[in-house]
Amino acid sequence: MQTRKILLSEDEMPRQWYNILADIKMNPPLGPDGKPVNPEALAAVFPMNLIEQEVSTERWIDIPEEVLKVYSIWRPSPLVRALSLEKALDTPAKIYFKNESLSPPGSHKPNTAVPQAYYNKVFGIKKITTETGAGQWGSALSFACAQYGIECKVFMVRISFDQKPYRKSMMAVWGGNCIASPSNETKAGRDALEKDPNTPGSLGIAISEAIEAAISDETGQTRYSLGSVLNHVLMHQTVIGLEAKKQLEKVGEYPDVIIGCAGGGSNFSGLSLPFVYDKLNGKQIDIYPVEPSACPTITRAPFVYDHGDTAGYTPLLPMHSLGHGFVPAPIHAGGLRYHGMAPIVSQLVSEGIMEAKAVTQLEAYKAGIIVARTEGIIPAPETNHALACVIDEAKKAKEEGKEKVILFNWSGHGLLDLAAYDNYFSGKMKDFILTDEEMLKSEEIFANYPKPALLKNR
Amino acid sequence: MQTRKILLSEDEMPRQWYNILADIKMNPPLGPDGKPVNPEALAAVFPMNLIEQEVSTERWIDIPEEVLKVYSIWRPSPLVRALSLEKALDTPAKIYFKNESLSPPGSHKPNTAVPQAYYNKVFGIKKITTETGAGQWGSALSFACAQYGIECKVFMVRISFDQKPYRKSMMAVWGGNCIASPSNETKAGRDALEKDPNTPGSLGIAISEAIEAAISDETGQTRYSLGSVLNHVLMHQTVIGLEAKKQLEKVGEYPDVIIGCAGGGSNFSGLSLPFVYDKLNGKQIDIYPVEPSACPTITRAPFVYDHGDTAGYTPLLPMHSLGHGFVPAPIHAGGLRYHGMAPIVSQLVSEGIMEAKAVTQLEAYKAGIIVARTEGIIPAPETNHALACVIDEAKKAKEEGKEKVILFNWSGHGLLDLAAYDNYFSGKMKDFILTDEEMLKSEEIFANYPKPALLKNR
Repeated sequence: MQTRKILLSEDEMPRQWYNILADIKMNPPLGPDGKPVNPEALAAVFPMNLIEQEVSTERWIDIPEEVLKVYSIWRPSPLVRALSLEKALDTPAKIYFKNESLSPPGSHKPNTAVPQAYYNKVFGIKKITTETGAGQWGSALSFACAQYGIECKVFMVRISFDQKPYRKSMMAVWGGNCIASPSNETKAGRDALEKDPNTPGSLGIAISEAIEAAISDETGQTRYSLGSVLNHVLMHQTVIGLEAKKQLEKVGEYPDVIIGCAGGGSNFSGLSLPFVYDKLNGKQIDIYPVEPSACPTITRAPFVYDHGDTAGYTPLLPMHSLGHGFVPAPIHAGGLRYHGMAPIVSQLVSEGIMEAKAVTQLEAYKAGIIVARTEGIIPAPETNHALACVIDEAKKAKEEGKEKVILFNWSGHGLLDLAAYDNYFSGKMKDFILTDEEMLKSEEIFANYPKPALLKNR
Repeated sequence: MQTRKILLSEDEMPRQWYNILADIKMNPPLGPDGKPVNPEALAAVFPMNLIEQEVSTERWIDIPEEVLKVYSIWRPSPLVRALSLEKALDTPAKIYFKNESLSPPGSHKPNTAVPQAYYNKVFGIKKITTETGAGQWGSALSFACAQYGIECKVFMVRISFDQKPYRKSMMAVWGGNCIASPSNETKAGRDALEKDPNTPGSLGIAISEAIEAAISDETGQTRYSLGSVLNHVLMHQTVIGLEAKKQLEKVGEYPDVIIGCAGGGSNFSGLSLPFVYDKLNGKQIDIYPVEPSACPTITRAPFVYDHGDTAGYTPLLPMHSLGHGFVPAPIHAGGLRYHGMAPIVSQLVSEGIMEAKAVTQLEAYKAGIIVARTEGIIPAPETNHALACVIDEAKKAKEEGKEKVILFNWSGHGLLDLAAYDNYFSGKMKDFILTDEEMLKSEEIFANYPKPALLKNR
C-alpha cells in the first residue's frame, strides 16, 4: 500500500522560523511625513518584542519552547500525497499538500496567533484586540489567548457577525469576546454609527476600532494584533514550509511547482518562503500565489505605497494594492478580500520571483468539489482557489507528459462555510471580474503617493 | 519538551479488526416467531458479506487493502496525552485520548462507514440507503460512498433537516442525497405524512423509510446501512482501541480506566473492546460507558429483548432499552438519543464487566468548555459526556493521590454543533433527568417480551 501521509514527530518540528528579510532587500514602510517609520512609533500598538521581529534581518529566529508546546497540539502537520486526486485526474504529476486544516480553529492562522499571544504575554500584556472579517483570524487568536490566559477582544465586521454566527460561538468557547463592529465602545465605532446606524461595517472600521481599543487602554496592558500582511506574521507561518521541506526530503522529492491561495499573503508565504530561499540561490521552481479574480491585487493592481487599512491609520506599505478604499465583491472567500498584499509577496511578485495567478469563484468551487470527493477533506473557500490552480497544473503536466512534483498548502477546512457550497449547488453562485475601467480607477488613486524604489533581489 | 501526540505510521495501522464474539457468549436476536433469526432473512436489507461478519465468531477479521487505503486519509489517529488538561486539574493522573475528530466528517463514524461502503461495493451494490438523526452518520456514509463511487441516499429526521442545514450541505459536497423524512418517496413516509402533514419526523420513521427504499429497489442493487448497535459495526470500530494499545505500548503505559460516551455504543466499544479482551483474561481495568441522564439505558433501564427501531421492523435484540417507543428529551447530543444500547455493551454491562455512568447535559458542557480551553479542540456534544466522567476520574485520582492512567475516546468535534454552546453560554440550556415514574412506565412495556438468558462471561 502506498503511503499517503508523511509524518514528522514532535521532535522533528522546526526550532526556528525563517526570516526572508535576511535575504532580500525591501522598501521600508513610510510614516505620515513620507520618511521611514521609526519602530518606536508602533510601541503603543504592538509589544516591542514583536516590533523587533518585524524589522529583524536575522535569518533564523528561535521558536520559544512555550510556543512549541502549543504548536504540538496540531503540529507538525501531515504532508499528504494526494493519491486519489492524482488518480482521478490521471496525471503523471505527484501532488503533495500540507494539511493546515487540522488545527483546532481549522486553518493555518494559529501558526502566528500562538506566538503573537505568547510574545504579548511575555511583554506583560493582559489583553489583545483584533478585527476579523469572516472570523478565521478572530477564532485563531481566541484559541491562542486561551492557551496563555490572555483576554481577547475581537471586533467582527457586522455583516459577517450577523451572517456567520458560529465563528462568534467558536470564539466564545475559547473565552474570546467577539462584538459587532461598528460598536459603541470606541470613538471610531460611534462615528461610523452616527453616520449610518444601519452600516454593515467594514474591515477598515473594525481595524480602527481594534487599534483604538488597544491604544486607549490607560493601564498600558492592551495591544493590537494583525493576522496577515506584516513581516513577522509571514515569518511565523514559515513553520509550514520548513516542515514540508523535511517531509519531502524523507521521500526524496523536491517541488517543481508551489501553489497557495493569497489574500493578505500569510499562508502562501508560510509554505513558499523557505523555497524562495532556494530559488534565490539558483533552484528552478515555479511559485504561484493564487488570488480571486474579484480582488486582483498581484495579477492586475500596481505596486505602490498604500495604507494597510481603509481609514489610513497604518504606515504606508510598499505593496500591490487596489487602493485602501477598494471594496471587493462579496465572494465567499472572505480571507481573500483584501485590497492589498503583504509587502514581501508584493516585492517578490514585482521582481518575477513569484508568478501571480487569478481564478474565479466558480472555477474555485468546481475544483473544491472534485478534491473533496477524492481526498475527502472539505476545503475552505480560500483553499478552493489554490485547488483550481493545482488541477490546472496537474492537467498541464499530463499534456506535457511530465512527472512534475506539485506542492500546495491546504490552508483550512470549509466546515464553517458550508452555506457557500449550498450557494454553488443551487446555481446561484456568481463570478465577479473587475472591469478595466474599475482597475484604472484604482490606479488614479495613487497618482500622488510615493512610489516604491526598484530593487533587484536576483 | 514533553511529547503530546503518540503517532503511528500507516504501516503500523492494524491489519485486522477484533471480533469479541469469539470471546463472549451472547443471546441471539429473535425473529417475529420468537426464534433465533436466520441470517438469510436479512439478505434483502444487508449484503451477505456484512451479514456474515455480523454473525462471525472468528476473533480476527482481515481489514481489506481497499479499506486501509481510505482509512489512511485520517488513520492511524493520534493518541494524545492531555498535558494541558492534567495541568489545569492538577491531577497525578495521566490522561490520554484517541482523537477521532480528525476524520473528514469529524467523528469516528467513518471507521465503519468506509468498510460498509466497501463490502456493499464488492457485493455489487450500487446504492446505499440510511437514516440519520443529527447528521453525523449520514455525512460519514456520504463521505465513504464518494470514495467507492456508490450512490448514497440519506433520510434525515425532518426537525434536524430543518434545524441543522449544514450537515445536509456536507453530504451534498460528497455527493450524498439527503432528504427530509417523512418523505413522499416511500409508503412509510406517505403514511406518516397522511397521519400528520406537519410531523417533525422521528428516527423510527426514517429507519423505516431507508429500509423500505432499499428492499423495494427491484434491481436488487440497493441495500441499507446502520451506523451503530450491530456487532459488525462495533467490530469495525475496534481499529480505535487496537491502535490505542500499540500507542500506549510505545510509551510503556496501560490504562487503569477507559471512558467513552455511549449512545448506540459504537465509539465506546471501538476503544474499549480490545481491552475487554484483556479484562476477560485477568487484567484489572475500570471500563465506563457514559450516557446522558436524559436517556439512561445502561444505568437505569432493564436488560430485555426489544426492537432496534421504533416501528418494530428489526428483529428483537437483547439489550438495555427504554422501550422502542421511548422519545428522549431534546438534548444536543443527538448521537446519544437512542432508546436502546448495542447488545454487546448491554451484555457486558449486565455482567458487570463494564460499569455504566450517566451525566447531565449541563455537567457535560461544563466539562467540554474546560477541555476546549486547555486541549484546544472543541468537542462534540456527545464527547462532552465522556469528558465529564474523565474530569471526575482525574479529580478522584488527585484525592486518592494515585497516578492512574485514564484513556478516553474523543469521538468527534463540535464545529457543526456550535449553536449548542451558544445555548449553554446564554444560560438557557436545560437538564433532563427521567423520573422514577417514567422509568417504571418503560419497564411495564416489557412485561410480555421474551427475556435474555443469564450468561456468564467471566
